[in-house]
Amino acid sequence: MSLNALISHIQPLDQEAIAAAKARQAVLTKPAGSLGRLEELSIQVAGVTGEALPQVNQKVVTVMAGDHGVVAEGVSAFPQAVTPQMVMNFLYNGAAINVLAKQAGARVVIVDMGVAVPMEAHPNLIDKKVAPGTANMAQGPAMSREQAEQAILAGASVVEAEIANGLDLLATGDMGIGNTTPSAAIAAVFTGADPAIIVGRGTGVDDEGMARKVTAVKKAIAINQPNKEDGLDVLSKVGGFEIGGLAGAILAAAANHKPVVVDGFISTAAAMIAVALCPTVRDYLIAGHCSEEQGHGLMLKSLGLEPLLDLNLRLGEGTGAVLAMNLVEAGCRTLCEMATFGEAGVSEKSE
Amino acid sequence: MSLNALISHIQPLDQEAIAAAKARQAVLTKPAGSLGRLEELSIQVAGVTGEALPQVNQKVVTVMAGDHGVVAEGVSAFPQAVTPQMVMNFLYNGAAINVLAKQAGARVVIVDMGVAVPMEAHPNLIDKKVAPGTANMAQGPAMSREQAEQAILAGASVVEAEIANGLDLLATGDMGIGNTTPSAAIAAVFTGADPAIIVGRGTGVDDEGMARKVTAVKKAIAINQPNKEDGLDVLSKVGGFEIGGLAGAILAAAANHKPVVVDGFISTAAAMIAVALCPTVRDYLIAGHCSEEQGHGLMLKSLGLEPLLDLNLRLGEGTGAVLAMNLVEAGCRTLCEMATFGEAGVSEKSE
Repeated sequence: MSLNALISHIQPLDQEAIAAAKARQAVLTKPAGSLGRLEELSIQVAGVTGEALPQVNQKVVTVMAGDHGVVAEGVSAFPQAVTPQMVMNFLYNGAAINVLAKQAGARVVIVDMGVAVPMEAHPNLIDKKVAPGTANMAQGPAMSREQAEQAILAGASVVEAEIANGLDLLATGDMGIGNTTPSAAIAAVFTGADPAIIVGRGTGVDDEGMARKVTAVKKAIAINQPNKEDGLDVLSKVGGFEIGGLAGAILAAAANHKPVVVDGFISTAAAMIAVALCPTVRDYLIAGHCSEEQGHGLMLKSLGLEPLLDLNLRLGEGTGAVLAMNLVEAGCRTLCEMATFGEAGVSEKSE
Repeated sequence: MSLNALISHIQPLDQEAIAAAKARQAVLTKPAGSLGRLEELSIQVAGVTGEALPQVNQKVVTVMAGDHGVVAEGVSAFPQAVTPQMVMNFLYNGAAINVLAKQAGARVVIVDMGVAVPMEAHPNLIDKKVAPGTANMAQGPAMSREQAEQAILAGASVVEAEIANGLDLLATGDMGIGNTTPSAAIAAVFTGADPAIIVGRGTGVDDEGMARKVTAVKKAIAINQPNKEDGLDVLSKVGGFEIGGLAGAILAAAANHKPVVVDGFISTAAAMIAVALCPTVRDYLIAGHCSEEQGHGLMLKSLGLEPLLDLNLRLGEGTGAVLAMNLVEAGCRTLCEMATFGEAGVSEKSE
């Protein structure tokens, strides 16, 4: 499928299902509105899925991994070798995302979108490597326009395969040493904000590392002049392969009427690419949490998303998104399973 | 057991377990601190339980119900008949707390602490009725000092029985038409704040109802002069039977080294009573969420608690607390189940 064909499948939310969910929320045994954001989530998922009583049974978190040429600028506290090491940790269930996904009952789908070194084949590792890491965006485009499209379509194909296996709710996750730097560049391009207020400490760089990150983002934007009206241009010039893969995952979920819980800084950068390519996608998104990473709040605000959780997380991998899946499920379950005033014989509000 | 004996069992947190949990968090495969509040929760639960690797397997939410004489002042949007109707709804699994507890894997323990009408016997309803509703606190004490102690000890006995059945994490919940009014009075007494900034809309009173609530709280405090240094005095003069039961539940959990997730406005009023009786209890508490109910944020601040969730909930029943149990479990699971850098062969941070 081409990118244009993928985007052409993305429809506005189903207003009839939204109206039905709203009407039911008003007669469940609780003061109207008293479940707050859970009610909103249930109504949104109704609109996304077209189901007045949406079920969240099968949950999937896709963790996409890639490396970044911009690490040559000294932007990360950890060596690049950690990307494949952490992919192996995911495969052996040792990482935070494995533990949290197990608790949430979510499948973990691990994808090599562009790790810099060859990865040993593993039955649970999906090989969609576009190239062994991006080029250094501080010196030129991170990737070609063709590679950007390839990354998006690869990410979409992963999610389409999962949808074929049953998927009610998708969460996005990332792994890639250095990837807060391209994410900050994407955020700066779309929000127009100064990179100095977007760039954060990532995995924990010191003040000098922070200064190098800001410089790298500024150089990347100055040299490449990404066009914010063209999501593919932004992705190719200052993005990453895993970021493109996640943008594709988001587009594929929306094209198939599935809600997406977006994780933190990197996933939100991917969401910005997806929304730039197709603004309707925004209505399919649920912001899992607000990251500790400086600038994330600004990105969410520019997308018009209100995060569900605020737990000072700054890990990525999809951890915040998987934690928030519980709340999406809670919203849908209360909508579907609670008794109405009539069913329970409970008196309604006095006039 | 007497109240003094119960309180005498409450010990400070186990510093050795806290140190061990902190040390392990530092070597798990993630940037140190990157799991934010999940890490803090795991360390707190280690300290509460005395276990360096605390497990959260058995979860219980206790929903305590009671009626309030102060409804005669016109303080609620719903008729008093809703209290027993909702208790029946809990027993038939139709309420929000049933749905959310099922999702969380928590047992729901329903207690009649003082519903105004006789409740039919039901195998899942625990009868600890102190009296058929409190007296109208706007005209005199809500209950006697003896009844206040009886309510606390009854709530404690419910939790002690659950602990005997296996309980790793307790959540508190309430039901009682009118109970935001005594809760606001308790909050005003302990924080010293003007009732006008504490009182909220509860289940949804209009502006006139709000004015009546503020007046009722002011009258109750003026007439009864509760002594904030004496938790039992505050409970007896401006409290409720379910509030006393929940204070007892909290004390019993702490006395048995179990963490407690506190729900919203009413549960936090109960926590204020418990902390007034035994300040050490504070370290055993986890604030599940910040309610939409005006004044809840102030109560949490006065207890020194930072809420985990902020979802505009204002339902009570323990709904916010049960949602937050997932996060407490997530903190403990990541602490216990993640691989260390050494185990996973992942490189640590560069110097």
